[in-house]
Amino acid sequence: MSEFKIGPLNHVGVAVPSIEEAANTYRELYGAIDITEPGEMEAQGVRFCFVNLPNSQIELIEPFGENSPIVNFLKKNPKGGQHHVCFEVDDIHEAKKVMEERGATVLNEPRIGAHGTLIIFVHPKNSNGVLIELMEAPKH
Amino acid sequence: MSEFKIGPLNHVGVAVPSIEEAANTYRELYGAIDITEPGEMEAQGVRFCFVNLPNSQIELIEPFGENSPIVNFLKKNPKGGQHHVCFEVDDIHEAKKVMEERGATVLNEPRIGAHGTLIIFVHPKNSNGVLIELMEAPKH
Repeated sequence: MSEFKIGPLNHVGVAVPSIEEAANTYRELYGAIDITEPGEMEAQGVRFCFVNLPNSQIELIEPFGENSPIVNFLKKNPKGGQHHVCFEVDDIHEAKKVMEERGATVLNEPRIGAHGTLIIFVHPKNSNGVLIELMEAPKH
Repeated sequence: MSEFKIGPLNHVGVAVPSIEEAANTYRELYGAIDITEPGEMEAQGVRFCFVNLPNSQIELIEPFGENSPIVNFLKKNPKGGQHHVCFEVDDIHEAKKVMEERGATVLNEPRIGAHGTLIIFVHPKNSNGVLIELMEAPKH
């Protein structure tokens, strides 16, 4: 039996029409002072930035490019909404193997995510309707 | 100008048809070993338990009683889904005042939440479609 387990809650992904407008909400309404500059991930079809909190992050994502996977999400939720939850794992290849051994559907081969480490996504049907991202923890 | 700001991300609220089944998912698929016993909050119309992670929590909630506010959410999302994000604040009364001064709609008077401290909810329309809970941090 594998002793695989998830680690910290790295971030909550929130899909929005505009990450600049959403960042303003966190800054002006909630007083968040540490928000990263926007970045782009062409392969994943998103522009993103992070609202840094003392223990975790909100990842704001908006569609980027023509085949962005979050376009449909925003059609259903025009103002935006919670899109995924990301947990850290020690080893993404072990995580993928364990998820599949336990019957879950992994949506992609491990690829580099917004933190520069390998990530996979697990289908929402396997986790009570929640899209789960697993992310290899950055090595310090 | 108030220096109000949110603190740590205390938890992500996930609404599900059954917190026992959802707890099993976190235990058996993701290897979470620290899951609290279920509790009930009659006034809020939920049964709940927490999946404890090293830095944060997943709060699993299911409907409790006849007028549960999450019944409609589950009608739209029968398998469940991300329901709210909770940030800690120093003083809930200050938080409510600041939210209202800044034009946000606070959905309730401060009341005791699942952690035994005072909480409020801010309308999703004010935060890019995300229902935000603000929770007075437990005093240690």
